[in-house]
Amino acid sequence: MNSILVIGSVALDTVLTPSGTQRDVLGGSAIYFALSASFFSRVNLVATVGKDFPKQYIALIKSFGVDLKGLEAREGKTFRWKGSYLDDLNCARTIDTQLNVFADFSPRIPREYKNSKYIFLANIDPDLQLSILKGSRHCQFAACDSMNHWIQNKGPVLKRLIKMTSAVFLNEAEAMLLSGESNILKTGKYLLSLGPRFAIVKRGEYGAVIFYKDRILFMTPAYPIEKVCDPTGAGDTFAGGFMGYLTKIKKIDSQAARKALLYGSTMASFAVEGFSVNRLRGLKRRDIETRCRSFIKLTTV
Amino acid sequence: MNSILVIGSVALDTVLTPSGTQRDVLGGSAIYFALSASFFSRVNLVATVGKDFPKQYIALIKSFGVDLKGLEAREGKTFRWKGSYLDDLNCARTIDTQLNVFADFSPRIPREYKNSKYIFLANIDPDLQLSILKGSRHCQFAACDSMNHWIQNKGPVLKRLIKMTSAVFLNEAEAMLLSGESNILKTGKYLLSLGPRFAIVKRGEYGAVIFYKDRILFMTPAYPIEKVCDPTGAGDTFAGGFMGYLTKIKKIDSQAARKALLYGSTMASFAVEGFSVNRLRGLKRRDIETRCRSFIKLTTV
Repeated sequence: MNSILVIGSVALDTVLTPSGTQRDVLGGSAIYFALSASFFSRVNLVATVGKDFPKQYIALIKSFGVDLKGLEAREGKTFRWKGSYLDDLNCARTIDTQLNVFADFSPRIPREYKNSKYIFLANIDPDLQLSILKGSRHCQFAACDSMNHWIQNKGPVLKRLIKMTSAVFLNEAEAMLLSGESNILKTGKYLLSLGPRFAIVKRGEYGAVIFYKDRILFMTPAYPIEKVCDPTGAGDTFAGGFMGYLTKIKKIDSQAARKALLYGSTMASFAVEGFSVNRLRGLKRRDIETRCRSFIKLTTV
Repeated sequence: MNSILVIGSVALDTVLTPSGTQRDVLGGSAIYFALSASFFSRVNLVATVGKDFPKQYIALIKSFGVDLKGLEAREGKTFRWKGSYLDDLNCARTIDTQLNVFADFSPRIPREYKNSKYIFLANIDPDLQLSILKGSRHCQFAACDSMNHWIQNKGPVLKRLIKMTSAVFLNEAEAMLLSGESNILKTGKYLLSLGPRFAIVKRGEYGAVIFYKDRILFMTPAYPIEKVCDPTGAGDTFAGGFMGYLTKIKKIDSQAARKALLYGSTMASFAVEGFSVNRLRGLKRRDIETRCRSFIKLTTV
């Protein structure tokens, strides 16, 4: 079984949604990615937490088979994020961010992970992402995510990073900000022009589009969920399904990329059905396959 | 060849888009619907214009084979609408509306159209839509569209109308306003609960969803267009493709409805490529089939 390395954040989230409020629950880009990818491949995680990080969360992450040799527990408190979806279920309003030990996160890649062939660089400082990628000589397929803050403040280094990756994930607003375009086709072509083999634009409740060879390879609406409980982490869960699937099947061609987009969308649809990672707990591969089939039926003429 | 009757507006539009400005060009819900549906079926149009309505537009409409026995030319000026897409290409900002002869539009259905089996009630006062439908005893498949204004001011009569139709078309914001829901699944189920066989929610650049038998039958993203010139009439062009196809094939089952949604989306994708109805001029059935095939390829895993 192939393994994938993810570098990103582990957080304790406090979220307010129409379904209720949850305090200090497990979150962070690396967590959503890792748990989602774990349904397809082995996952190695590199991140940092404070000494206050609850032991039961360590046990929870391990129960997904995620390898935590790269999870550093440092003096201080874990990264905390507080956000509300009360005004708009599709867009978080950040109430508070406490970076804590994440403020000076300097990822150390354990020797056992140095030969990683598949790497996901979740949304952190693009200088760190670039330095990790430059040190990963055996990497065959690296992907990255980013956010508005880095696009606005570290655009040039982010573009150098994207040039070196095989796939870039951005949500639609971020992708348009980076490209300066307001059209989805022009935006995707711009992303490809930076150098990656694939560009994936996430459109939240409206689905996702994957670009390849100067055109759209495949596009899909989102799998419809009757009760969206908590959208936190949907994008990273999406990337986890996408990358986890590609890591598993080894041969990465256009058909594999289409199916990866479908698996990413399916995983994201599960994630939003519960708070934190709750809906991923107890999820079985057959649940994923069943939903995938129903998804294909809904979107095939 | 089956024919479909459309009742709605004929307008002279002035539109401002990033591609330029066009003054007093052919528009109106009945026009976009009729020209789009004409690629699939015979179309009979009922609407009103003023004596100032340009003769070349009459010739243009007739060149699509649309029957104009029901187009009444009255003393006064034609309905005029002026809108801008300069702030947001996906959402018109109305600058000016002059109802003119459309203000007291009282549709008179020519005797030749009285036996219509297929009817599209474009967005006009729901009291008029209801009265037309009640007088159409031979109708087998009626569909309607509406807008925020009627939802807010004539909700009860609009719901009675929808109950009597086989299909209701609304854009997502309108459908959510009518349903009081903010979730696409709940919104669609609400629309079906009013009584129609099919409910179609249009999501603009994000595509469309069709509901049937208390669930989603089929959903699709929009066909991606690199240069959207003028989105005016996209929704009515969509309905024209949908209804035109159903009118043509006669047997209206779930598979036909899926294909109708695809044709509707395809026709709308052509409409936005040019100002007014320009892109529909010279369009061939084979252009439609070619784009449909490419659309299926883009959205099939």
